[in-house]
Order: sequence, then C-alpha cells, then structure tokens
Amino acid sequence: MILTVTLNAALDITYRVDALRPQTTHRVAGVAERPGGKGVNVARVLHALGEPVLATGLAGGATGARIRRLLAGGGVREAFVPIGGESRRTLVVAAGDDEPTGFWEPGPRVTADEWDAFLGRYRELLADAGVAVLSGSLPPGVPRDAYAVLVGLAADAGVATILDADGDPAYLGVRAGPDVVKPNARELSALHGIILGRSVTVGTVDGAVDAAAAIRALGARSVVASLGPDGLLAAAGERVYRAVPAEHVAGNPTGAGDAAVAGLARGARTGQPWPERLRDAVALSAAAVAAPVAGELSLEEYERQRAAVTVTELR
Amino acid sequence: MILTVTLNAALDITYRVDALRPQTTHRVAGVAERPGGKGVNVARVLHALGEPVLATGLAGGATGARIRRLLAGGGVREAFVPIGGESRRTLVVAAGDDEPTGFWEPGPRVTADEWDAFLGRYRELLADAGVAVLSGSLPPGVPRDAYAVLVGLAADAGVATILDADGDPAYLGVRAGPDVVKPNARELSALHGIILGRSVTVGTVDGAVDAAAAIRALGARSVVASLGPDGLLAAAGERVYRAVPAEHVAGNPTGAGDAAVAGLARGARTGQPWPERLRDAVALSAAAVAAPVAGELSLEEYERQRAAVTVTELR
Repeated sequence: MILTVTLNAALDITYRVDALRPQTTHRVAGVAERPGGKGVNVARVLHALGEPVLATGLAGGATGARIRRLLAGGGVREAFVPIGGESRRTLVVAAGDDEPTGFWEPGPRVTADEWDAFLGRYRELLADAGVAVLSGSLPPGVPRDAYAVLVGLAADAGVATILDADGDPAYLGVRAGPDVVKPNARELSALHGIILGRSVTVGTVDGAVDAAAAIRALGARSVVASLGPDGLLAAAGERVYRAVPAEHVAGNPTGAGDAAVAGLARGARTGQPWPERLRDAVALSAAAVAAPVAGELSLEEYERQRAAVTVTELR
Repeated sequence: MILTVTLNAALDITYRVDALRPQTTHRVAGVAERPGGKGVNVARVLHALGEPVLATGLAGGATGARIRRLLAGGGVREAFVPIGGESRRTLVVAAGDDEPTGFWEPGPRVTADEWDAFLGRYRELLADAGVAVLSGSLPPGVPRDAYAVLVGLAADAGVATILDADGDPAYLGVRAGPDVVKPNARELSALHGIILGRSVTVGTVDGAVDAAAAIRALGARSVVASLGPDGLLAAAGERVYRAVPAEHVAGNPTGAGDAAVAGLARGARTGQPWPERLRDAVALSAAAVAAPVAGELSLEEYERQRAAVTVTELR
C-alpha cells in the first residue's frame, strides 16, 4: 500500500464567473469543490490508477470534515488525524479564458499534542505501507524538521519515501535520506541555493544535473526534477535520465507535479525500472495538464501520452 | 419570542488581502466567518439587544453545519431544518480601502419534502412566537409563494409578521397581508412597479408615500421603507412618519437594513408606539453602519445614535 501524507490539507474551491470585476459583486455561475493539498492529489491519482493507497495527514473543522467526506465519496481510503483548527481553503476564481485568480487561506495552527498524535498514527500506518509520499507545505505549529522525522520513521520501518516539499522543510528532509526527492525547477534552485549558501538559478540541463548531484550528496538517494513542459530530469543509481513528452501539452499545470509523484510512487512500490517509471510519471503529468478540470486526469489520455514519451540516458 | 426565518442561510466569509490583482494568486492575510443571510443577521442583532429570539430556516451540508455552529457559538438559539443540499457561501474580498469585491454562490436546491418538513417545523415554532420575521431570497426549489404561505400560517396562529424580501416573492407575500413590509429604496420601486405593471423609480418622498400606499392597498398592514442615509419612511395606522439619523454615518451599509428590521421586530413584540419604534430602527441601522465589522454593532453606539434621531409626522 502507498501512504500519502498531507499535513496542510485543503478544500480546493473553484468559482466560475463571467468576468472578474474588482470592487463589484459577482453571482457565481458554478461552484466546484475537491479535496486538495499535494498529498491528497497524489492519492487521488493513485486511486484512479487502481493502486492501493491510504491518505493521511492533518484535517480539522468543518473544512477538514468536508475534505474527508469528499475523499471518501471518491473512494479514496483516508486516515486523517483530526486537529482543533480549521483546515484551509484554496479558492480559484475562473473567468472565461483569463488566467485564474487564486486566494490561499493560511493553514490552521497545529498544537504539539496534535503533532504527537499524528506521529503515533503515522507509525501505525507505516506497518502496512510499501512507500510513503510526503508532500506539500507545513501548517503553522508543525516543526520545521517534520519531514526529516517522517523520513526517519519510514526508514526505521523499512518503508521507502518520496519527498515533494519546498524550502527549509525540504532541505531538512533531504538530510534524513529520503529515497526520492521531487523538486520542480524553482524548488530545485532553492534547494541548491540553501546547500551552497547563496542564490542559485538553475537554468540549464547541466545546471539541473549539478543541483541534483548536490541534493544526493546531502542525503537523497535519487532526485527527480520536474521541469514543466521540458519533462523530468532524474538522477538515480549510476545514471542520469531525461524523460520528455512528445509534444507541448496545453492546459492547466495545477496538479501535474502531483501526478508525476503518483507515477514515481507506484514505480517505487513495484520496483519498476527507472526508464519505465519516468515514462509513466511524464505521461501522468501530461494527462493531468490536458484534463479539463484541475486535479482530474483521463486514463485514456495517460495511455496515449505514455506511448509518446522519450526517455534518454544523459550519463 | 421573536422567530426569524432564513430560507437561504449563508456563511459570510471575508478575505483580507493587501490588494486585489486579477489573474494572480493571493496569500490571504486574514479570514473571518460569520453566519449570514438576512434573517440570521436580524436574529444576531436581537440577541445582542437581549431579546428572546429563535432563528429557523433551511441549512444543509458542511456549510449549513458551520452556520449553525457559529450561531450557537454566539449564543443565538437556532432550530434550522436540515436539507440535503449545501448551503451557500458569500465571499467578500476586502483590499485596503477599496470597495469590497463580492462572490455570491447560488443557493442549494430544496426538495418538496424538505419544504414540507420546514412548514411542519415552522407551525410548531409559531406556538411560542409573538412575531415572525421573514427575510431574504428563496433558494431554488422553494415555491415562489413561500412568503405568502408563511404569512398566512402566522396569521392563523395569531403571530405578527415582518416581511423583508424582493421581487415576486415579496409581491406574493404582501398579498397575504403581513403586518409590516420593509423594502429598501430599490425594492420599493420594484414592488410598486409590479403592482402598477410598469417600470417605476421612486425618487422622492412623495413617490415613496405613494408606493407605500399602493403596497398597503395590496395587503400590507404597514410599510416601512429604508432609504439609506435618508432614514426610514413609515406608513402605519393613519399616519406617515419619517425618521432620520442626526448625521450621515460613514461605514459599511451591509446589514443596516437587517438591524432596522430587528428594531421593528422588537417594537412589534412589545407594542411600542410607532415613533419610538422607528427611532430604535434608525439608531440600530446607523450603529450597524458605524460598526467596524459588517454584521456587528455596538450597543453604546446604538444608544448614542438613538438620542439623535429625528422623527416627524408627514401626514
């Protein structure tokens, strides 16, 4: 079973309006709600693929209850640990063909007791897990080294870890030795910058290869960087791979990285060879971008994309 | 006891942001939530005044549960009838001193069985009520003559009614003979227009007096029109009154009409003479406008405003 961890779960709300006119009142034509947060997105993709998955994390209040109910309604097994605070909402206002306008609520404050309760539950859930996916931001109150602790506990239980995080929590997590780290281009630059102690902008494939090497030297067993339309760059074992989609896919990039992580998690669970694992991850990512609704993807589109991914060995 | 009816209850959410920039993502600096819908606002003002009040209506889903919990948390007794649909949210984005930007979700669809269940509950609650306040829009599925039915049932139970609604539901409700109808300037024009079968814009005090007379002729026992900063115009018994605040009050007009209705409801319950009733309604309205947070009001400000209201008999 794959265990996904979402410490800052969200209720993703989309408002459809004709046009966004600041300082006026809008009648919302359509409201869509889905359970969100990066780990939750990964769990939903894995469930769509028929993979056994369990979503855990922290969720609280009416919004937390709604997130859990929507997950269960979609058939995704969940074991979220309740907190006293109210889980956050992320609101997107979609107006015609305009770029969306987003409003991200701050996360709930988590108490030390709630964090301890989560660690207890996480330890229990690791017993049945083959892979743990650790994704997304930390809500206030959760210690900055949370991902380091979770990576360490998974290693103690013999469970592989995939870490998809940003900034200091990602840096501290990498030092604990996760099996896979999955930064996007911006996060790759940020991580490399923290390691080097200076500002870094990774702008080339060679630069990405250097950054991945630095992250592996810090503790990660492998690094898979998602470079948007340029696909994935992966440093694993003795090799460096690049996997690119056949064509530029137009659409909504929200959730594309999470779909790639789902592919990597499935590959880690089954011990899939890296080239095939990356092919899956790129195809899932492209299918997520092509989906009409952010966070959904079509298995047919995934199969179509899969046939067209190019995987090359750079080194 | 005063019974308030809110058939389209709402969760009022306010997002505070530095500036609204369309087609970008905003980190929300502050989130405020309060139970809303016009009847709920009336109930909260009455509760703040120490009046015995019970809030009923229709509420459903996670949002409905949150509305009820927030009401109870504020000490307001509630007996909402549950529905299967999700109650609506009304979101306001407040950016510095700009006018707010609002997003109103559509209301939930109400089934015939749910409406019947409400009517049963309403009949029971009328047994303990002195006044019933019927406020706001009708969600989809509730019959257009809902307010007419509720006015009739209240009359059968010997309970006075105050109707604050718009358009056809208001027109049909007036024909059933409520004790007080409380349109604002726009609603007054609309109601007079429906009665006359042509477009009407009430622009003068004489025009408002004519419109009020037409509404009384249609069935309302008395009419109190709220004219914004110009105060109230009331046609009741053999008299026409005007009640105006001492000064223009700067602030947020949201909820000012509901605060006025609360004053009228309390006056109806206690049989307060009309001039004093109107003085209270204007002062409560002005105190609501002056409040820093929409939907709140200070009793001190109410007392201060009350001393400064001018009530005159026009006829």
